[in-house]
Amino acid sequence: MSELIAVDWGTSSLRAALLDERGHVVEEHSMPRGILTVVAGEFPDVLQAATARWPRRSDTLCLLSGMVGSRQGWLEAPYCACPAGFAEIAARLAWVEPGRIAIVPGLSCEEQGVPDVMRGEETQVFGALALLGLDSARLVLPGTHSKWVRAKAGRIEGFSTFMTGEFYALLRSHSILARTLPDADGDLDAGAFEQGLRHALRTGNLLHAAFSARTLSLFDRLPAAAAPSYLSGLVIGEEMRSQQLASGDDPVLVVGSPALTQRYELALRLLGVSAVAVGSEATWRGLWSIARNLEKTA
Amino acid sequence: MSELIAVDWGTSSLRAALLDERGHVVEEHSMPRGILTVVAGEFPDVLQAATARWPRRSDTLCLLSGMVGSRQGWLEAPYCACPAGFAEIAARLAWVEPGRIAIVPGLSCEEQGVPDVMRGEETQVFGALALLGLDSARLVLPGTHSKWVRAKAGRIEGFSTFMTGEFYALLRSHSILARTLPDADGDLDAGAFEQGLRHALRTGNLLHAAFSARTLSLFDRLPAAAAPSYLSGLVIGEEMRSQQLASGDDPVLVVGSPALTQRYELALRLLGVSAVAVGSEATWRGLWSIARNLEKTA
Repeated sequence: MSELIAVDWGTSSLRAALLDERGHVVEEHSMPRGILTVVAGEFPDVLQAATARWPRRSDTLCLLSGMVGSRQGWLEAPYCACPAGFAEIAARLAWVEPGRIAIVPGLSCEEQGVPDVMRGEETQVFGALALLGLDSARLVLPGTHSKWVRAKAGRIEGFSTFMTGEFYALLRSHSILARTLPDADGDLDAGAFEQGLRHALRTGNLLHAAFSARTLSLFDRLPAAAAPSYLSGLVIGEEMRSQQLASGDDPVLVVGSPALTQRYELALRLLGVSAVAVGSEATWRGLWSIARNLEKTA
Repeated sequence: MSELIAVDWGTSSLRAALLDERGHVVEEHSMPRGILTVVAGEFPDVLQAATARWPRRSDTLCLLSGMVGSRQGWLEAPYCACPAGFAEIAARLAWVEPGRIAIVPGLSCEEQGVPDVMRGEETQVFGALALLGLDSARLVLPGTHSKWVRAKAGRIEGFSTFMTGEFYALLRSHSILARTLPDADGDLDAGAFEQGLRHALRTGNLLHAAFSARTLSLFDRLPAAAAPSYLSGLVIGEEMRSQQLASGDDPVLVVGSPALTQRYELALRLLGVSAVAVGSEATWRGLWSIARNLEKTA
């Protein structure tokens, strides 16, 4: 396979990389040109500016993933239904320029009549599996909207979204709890994090468990400096509660930047489950894997 | 017993009533003088202004409940630990003016090392029980912070707070869901409310269930006008999920103004549990019951 220009184009930023014939990153850089900053019609120019440093041969493919394929992006790449692997993704690529520039579709799945969606994370999942040489695994991609993903035989079977990062931010900044929290989060207080995690698991309902951050503070049993870590433990614990994790389970792959994955690794460890962290290189490997499989099927 | 001046003094408003010897309301009125509008030292004057229309005899008691007894109020009335009935409340009244003006203490309870608190709701609970001639019941007091209360033999045994109203407001106004919701809530859409309620019960985790309001809208399966009712069903369903309600249970007393109780009555009915609604007159009856029992023990 020839070289690949890989682009991770999200809501708030654009990252681009040149990958060589073996999928190794030759060079990468990022720009604060997330899709929210781009007006319709301006997408080709922004992509050109992001990749001009890499003169393209006629057969060089440029593959994009992330929110660039949403209704608010360059070209809508309709969701591909799970189970989905390389073949399904290849069939659903949205070609901006035939044979040259394509957008990876997001995935959808449905559980009891309610849909769930992801866009961008599917690429990270394929990349993480490829990096670790696995074709089946349970994965979590922490974030504003965390994704728990089941992969089997190289395909994503299904997944569930948890609005954990968003709930944390809402409670942190806009709820009554904000009144007793310090302005900055500070370093993680591992003890308070574990206390919050275990309270969420025991309580089984965040609507109730969250009030403990208020009452513990009212009774001077939770120092203000530890409260953000406690709240973080509460919401991550609430997310973990629904994963049916048992001590001794196969490792969970935790995919994302260290700032996001660190607390999930800690939470899993506290539950007796081992975690394997994969960083943001998963996106590049995922785009490369999709491109390589595209070539195979072509 | 002689007449009573009853005052429900909360965060955002003050309501006062003159009750006759039998506990009937002779007159009542309200003022936008919640404790947040009152500076320290000004409380006696505001109470005077609120009750001046009712010339007091020397033996007329004035009894206050609500956030006026909090740290930010007139005089802190420390929480009374559960189980608590009239005797415990009487022993813990905070007397502003001995024999004349007193504040009812809030209640606290503790579950697995974590405290819970209420202030004002205890008075409504005693009033609701008195109005219905009960001494044992399960009650819910919907609101920003809903309270589920267990009363037995005339005492409050314990309770749990659910931040349901606050989570609704956070998701409604500050989350990604706000983007697809109309500006005003509009009338309740009972079908969408039930759909949300059942999804929350089935999902068992609001962090996950809440995302359905996003995806159903994305797939055009939830009209924008119905989305606030759906979201309301989600959060109230999440609250109901933890109450171990079973079809055919004893009625649950739903205490509060109709604007708050209507959806809870509907939710309970959908779960096969009958509900008995008690309005805001519960506060007056509660204060009168506390005063009458005070006289008995004096």
